Amino acid sequence: MEPTLPYGSFTTADQPGRPRVGVARGDTVLDLTAASASLLPEHAALFAAGTLDPLLAAGPEAWARVRAAVTGWLVEPGGGDLAPELLVPRAAARMRLPFAVADYVDFYASEHHAANLGRILRPGTDPLTPNWRHMPIGYHGRAGTVVVSGTPVTRPCGQLRAADGSVAYGPSRRLDFEAELGFVVGTPSAPGRPVPLAEAGRHLFGVCLVNDWSARDIQAWEYVPLGPFLGKSFATSISPWVVPLAALESARVPPPPRDPRPLPYLDDAGAEPPWGLDIRLEVALNGHVVSRPPFAAMYWTAAQQLAHLTANGAWLRTGDLLASGTVSGPGRDERGSLIELSWNGAEPLTLPGGAERAFLQDGDEVTITARGLDFGEVRGRVVGWGA
Amino acid sequence: MEPTLPYGSFTTADQPGRPRVGVARGDTVLDLTAASASLLPEHAALFAAGTLDPLLAAGPEAWARVRAAVTGWLVEPGGGDLAPELLVPRAAARMRLPFAVADYVDFYASEHHAANLGRILRPGTDPLTPNWRHMPIGYHGRAGTVVVSGTPVTRPCGQLRAADGSVAYGPSRRLDFEAELGFVVGTPSAPGRPVPLAEAGRHLFGVCLVNDWSARDIQAWEYVPLGPFLGKSFATSISPWVVPLAALESARVPPPPRDPRPLPYLDDAGAEPPWGLDIRLEVALNGHVVSRPPFAAMYWTAAQQLAHLTANGAWLRTGDLLASGTVSGPGRDERGSLIELSWNGAEPLTLPGGAERAFLQDGDEVTITARGLDFGEVRGRVVGWGA
Repeated sequence: MEPTLPYGSFTTADQPGRPRVGVARGDTVLDLTAASASLLPEHAALFAAGTLDPLLAAGPEAWARVRAAVTGWLVEPGGGDLAPELLVPRAAARMRLPFAVADYVDFYASEHHAANLGRILRPGTDPLTPNWRHMPIGYHGRAGTVVVSGTPVTRPCGQLRAADGSVAYGPSRRLDFEAELGFVVGTPSAPGRPVPLAEAGRHLFGVCLVNDWSARDIQAWEYVPLGPFLGKSFATSISPWVVPLAALESARVPPPPRDPRPLPYLDDAGAEPPWGLDIRLEVALNGHVVSRPPFAAMYWTAAQQLAHLTANGAWLRTGDLLASGTVSGPGRDERGSLIELSWNGAEPLTLPGGAERAFLQDGDEVTITARGLDFGEVRGRVVGWGA
Repeated sequence: MEPTLPYGSFTTADQPGRPRVGVARGDTVLDLTAASASLLPEHAALFAAGTLDPLLAAGPEAWARVRAAVTGWLVEPGGGDLAPELLVPRAAARMRLPFAVADYVDFYASEHHAANLGRILRPGTDPLTPNWRHMPIGYHGRAGTVVVSGTPVTRPCGQLRAADGSVAYGPSRRLDFEAELGFVVGTPSAPGRPVPLAEAGRHLFGVCLVNDWSARDIQAWEYVPLGPFLGKSFATSISPWVVPLAALESARVPPPPRDPRPLPYLDDAGAEPPWGLDIRLEVALNGHVVSRPPFAAMYWTAAQQLAHLTANGAWLRTGDLLASGTVSGPGRDERGSLIELSWNGAEPLTLPGGAERAFLQDGDEVTITARGLDFGEVRGRVVGWGA
């Protein structure tokens, strides 16, 4: 497991009311709130509150200086002369939502996912809508229901339309996960000033894992014409660890070719560094890996999403969360949602022991990790409505 | 003009760095931050920061006590023995965004508006989508670009598709306003616990005016399948004054009849008090009234929107803003947007002096008020891209 030195916010059992910023390496968490007070006093104010918000807002030069210091302490030979009380066992760190989510935008950037959904939900038409290859399609989600990994996810209720056209209110019968990456905005931008592709790295601080839980039956009935609403807004889970982009330099790869060539504000041909990321997600259902979605296959990059989001003059705030949309690859075992894996229920998965799953049942636990890279995990267990 | 004693946040020229909570009556603003320190000490902490957030979070009993005190001072005969330094001329109060917007949800609750848009955008089909009479359709907007009245609104750029199918990036040519009311959440709700219709009044603090600026050309190309995004997210203007619901008791009217009867969680037949509001908006373009949309005609009420928003287990936060959607009545001069008033540009408005408007031009100013009720105003002037 390659150390990424991700940042998070944690408490411990002996000080439950005192959140601290931590940096993870292996089985250990460095208490950066405590360490910075003595070892990095010029930046200690960024960590005093115990959340990532001040660090996010501090901008790329501060990010680089803090990471250099932390790398020196935790990675470089001979650098680690840290007092034992600064190190907490990772298992003892109670992880919190790492930052205050400002606006949450969910994109739809995987061609394989968008085409699969098109084939399933709009059979007989072009799987991709006409706009899809021209822009990173996205929508605003509910920032207030973004929760940290480990938070139980209550099966949502909603309006469900039966085959005979009748409509009733009840618990979703088609509850799903969506495996995604989330890009966290640090530096704000100015009103009316789009962020060019080349400046994305000055605004994006890091990356977390996202499970964008989805109730397919609620969504199918509500989403025309204004898009997903209650089918998504009951919960979105994120990993407690945010991996700084600086840790992902070796994962950078060119994105797939685009056709047609994007408009100039989205055209990243030859951009250095490229914004594709060779990160392989792993999705486990009740401990059994059911999918390995490849992020490298994503059609639109985070830099393009940022450029598009601000192309109309909208501005960024610290804590904006840009989720990639479901990550799906071309292979059947690379699909990032159950609706794709079970092809809308027609081909249920068989789990070890023989249990079948078309959609999630109460008690099911979904865990998403990144293979070979320390992103921690985003995990959630489904609990029944009213339980 | 009936006094509503609305709340806002303001500064003055002599103390630009010190926001205070104000209550407006006529040409005067009571400095509630200062007044409460001596006259209402048990609630003074709610106003110390100078924004409405602590008052919103304090809940309905505190709202009632504060309003009773303020009413005593400002309205009741003999009550007004206020020191002169507690009163600021309204013209001297520099109004700020009154509260921190948590999540912003925009609904689509006017049958006349939804049907007009259906006729314009999807001719040849049923004007209302099949779900429209079953639920208050809504979507999440961008909370971070909600701005206070008076903030200039930059004409957005975006992808525009020409009649020949070609796509280019440029300034919107179909910039529009949408006249709405916004309902402001005070008391949060618990995860997994829908808010029943009968409890809406415990969560909703008050009402403001909203102009949900819209770029029709950007929106038309982007919105299938995930709904409005950049066509809306460049700016949403709200009035600086929030009218407490307690001030609108005499405006309560039964909502229009619904067919089919809503599902039980949305069924407000016979509810007391009713949640319809007999409020007549007035929309002025460059000082000339172009529309008088009647809020009483809205099909879905704010209580139903709150019940629907939480029906899936999603919870409320203090500062959530629920906009009604464009308010349009049956009459041509009751339509709350230019796309309706000019029937998608086919029938431009003629302004005094002979100028025609199908959509907004740079320099145009839109002002929305409520007839006979002190809501203040929401006002914005369009400035050109890059100006």
